[in-house]
Amino acid sequence: MTAAPTRPQGVFSPVLTPFNADSTPDADRFIRHCRWLLEQEVGLAVFGTNSEANSMSVAEKRRLLEALLQAGIPASRLMPGTGCCALSDSIELTKMAVQAGVGGVLMLPPFYYKGVSDEGLYRAFASVIDAVADERLRVYLYHIPPVSNVAITRGLVERLLKAYPKAIAGMKDSSGDWNNTKAMIEAFGPQGFEVYAGSESFLLANLRAGGPGCITATANVNPTKIVQLYKTWRNADAEAQQKALDVTRAAFAQFPMIPAMKAAIAWKTGRQDWLHVRPPLVDLDAQQQQALQAALDQVGFTMPNAGMLA
Amino acid sequence: MTAAPTRPQGVFSPVLTPFNADSTPDADRFIRHCRWLLEQEVGLAVFGTNSEANSMSVAEKRRLLEALLQAGIPASRLMPGTGCCALSDSIELTKMAVQAGVGGVLMLPPFYYKGVSDEGLYRAFASVIDAVADERLRVYLYHIPPVSNVAITRGLVERLLKAYPKAIAGMKDSSGDWNNTKAMIEAFGPQGFEVYAGSESFLLANLRAGGPGCITATANVNPTKIVQLYKTWRNADAEAQQKALDVTRAAFAQFPMIPAMKAAIAWKTGRQDWLHVRPPLVDLDAQQQQALQAALDQVGFTMPNAGMLA
Repeated sequence: MTAAPTRPQGVFSPVLTPFNADSTPDADRFIRHCRWLLEQEVGLAVFGTNSEANSMSVAEKRRLLEALLQAGIPASRLMPGTGCCALSDSIELTKMAVQAGVGGVLMLPPFYYKGVSDEGLYRAFASVIDAVADERLRVYLYHIPPVSNVAITRGLVERLLKAYPKAIAGMKDSSGDWNNTKAMIEAFGPQGFEVYAGSESFLLANLRAGGPGCITATANVNPTKIVQLYKTWRNADAEAQQKALDVTRAAFAQFPMIPAMKAAIAWKTGRQDWLHVRPPLVDLDAQQQQALQAALDQVGFTMPNAGMLA
Repeated sequence: MTAAPTRPQGVFSPVLTPFNADSTPDADRFIRHCRWLLEQEVGLAVFGTNSEANSMSVAEKRRLLEALLQAGIPASRLMPGTGCCALSDSIELTKMAVQAGVGGVLMLPPFYYKGVSDEGLYRAFASVIDAVADERLRVYLYHIPPVSNVAITRGLVERLLKAYPKAIAGMKDSSGDWNNTKAMIEAFGPQGFEVYAGSESFLLANLRAGGPGCITATANVNPTKIVQLYKTWRNADAEAQQKALDVTRAAFAQFPMIPAMKAAIAWKTGRQDWLHVRPPLVDLDAQQQQALQAALDQVGFTMPNAGMLA
C-alpha cells in the first residue's frame, strides 16, 4: 500500500471522452488528450459530466482508466468520477481508482430517485467508503443540482466530515451559485475541506475566498489561460484575466457545451472523429460548427500545441 | 429464434427487489415474490423504478433475470426494465432480455442529462433497437418525468413509431397526468401502440379509453383487487372497485412507497429481511412501520397466500 496522496490543487478538467463513429470510446485519442492537458498543467477529472461518463458502462470506464495508466499517465493527477446510481457500480469504480493510486475521486450522489433524504444520501456515500475500506480514499463530493437534481447540502457534508474526516476531502460545486460555494468554504474550509468551483467563471472568487481552484469543462479547450489565472491570481491583471476567460466561455455556451467543445477540438486538430457524442447528446451540425468557429474566432480562441491531439 | 411474443395485456407489477442485510439482492425471495405475483395473474415488470433497478449494476440484474428463468418463470410474462443512462448498458440488458424471450422491455430514456432534445432521445432509442437487431424486440417506452426528469413527448413517439413500427409496442405513462395518457392512447392506440397507466389509480379510465391496463407499484402488495377490476371493469361496481383501490394506495402513499411496500410484506410474512432497501432509499423505522400497519388495518388490507413468500 502506498502512502495517502497529497491533496490535489489547481485547475482540473472533466476530460472529454472521444468516441469512434460506432460510438465506442477511442482510448488512443483519450490518452493524447490527457497528455495535452497535463502539459498545460491541468488535472484530469476523467469520467465527469462533460466526459459523458454516465453514458458509458462501468466496463468501458475501467478499460479507459486502465489505458491511461498503461500509457504512463500519473495516477496522482487523476480525479475520476466514480459516483453512479447503483451502489455496486460506485463501489467497483471507486475501488479500482483508489487501488490505482488516484489523487481523489469525484463522487456524484445516486441520481435516479429525486427528493431523497440526507439520511439516504449519507448511507449511500458511507456505504461506498465502508466497502472500499482503503486509507488512501479521498472523496470529493459532486454537487451539480442542475443536472443530477439531487443536492449535497451543508448538513450532509457536516455529517460525512464528522464520520469520515480523512476520506471526505472536498467537493466540486457546480450549482452555479457562488453564495453556496462561499458558504461551503466558510463552513468547512478550516477543516481542510477543499471546495472547487465548478466553472472557471468563479475561479478568481474561489481563490480569493481560500478555495483550491476549479474543475471546469472549458479547461478541455482553453486550459492555458485558465491555468494562468490560477497561477497569477494575486496579480493586478487578475480581473481582466477573469473577464477574458468569461468571454471565451460565453462563446462556447451559445451552443450545447459538450458537442461544442468537441467540435472546437475537431476544428483545431482537423480530426472530424472528435465531433462524435453518445446519445442522448447530439453533435453539432455543419451550420452550428460554422457559427461556433465564427464565435471563437471573434474572441481570439486558440488551442496551443493542438498538433499533439491530431 | 422463437416467434414474436403476443402483446402483453393486463396488470403488471414493477417487482420489488428483496435485499439481504449486506445489500446484496436475494434471488430466492425474488423468485418467490414473482411466483406469488403470477399466481395473482400479475405480469412481471422486473427492474422498474419500484424495483430499485437503477440502484443495481447490470451484472446484478443479469444474475436476477437468469435466476428467474432457471426457476421456470415464463419469460413471456416478463417485461424487464432495460433502459439505463449508458447506451452500452441498455443494449446489453435489452439483448439479454430479448434472447430470453420476454414479452417486452420497458425502456427508460437515458436520464442523467436534462433538457436533452427529442433528436437525442430518438438516437438513444434507435441505437438500442439497431444494436439489438432482433425481430422479437418489443419496446415499451417509459415516461416517468417526476423521477427521470426526461420526458417522452408525442413527437418522439410519432417518430419512433414511424421508423420502428414493429419494435415500438407501447409505453408506460407514469406522468400522473391522465390527460397525457388519454392523448397518447388517442394519437397512437389505433396503430396498436399500447399505453399502460403508470398507476392503478387510472386503471378504470385506461380500460374505458381502450388502453391495455396498468403497470403499478401497488400490484406488489394489492394484486388481487387490482386484477379483479381489470377483469370486471364493465361491471356495475367498477367505480366502487376503483375507489377501494385508491383508498389502499393512499394508505401506502402516506409513506415513502418502496420502503412502505417492503415493510408491508415484512409484516404479512414475518420476514424482517423484506425491510431492506438500497441507499439512497431508507427503510421504515419501527415507528413508521407501526403507523403503516395501523393505516393498512384501517383500510382492511390483506395479502392472500402471503405464506408463499415467507
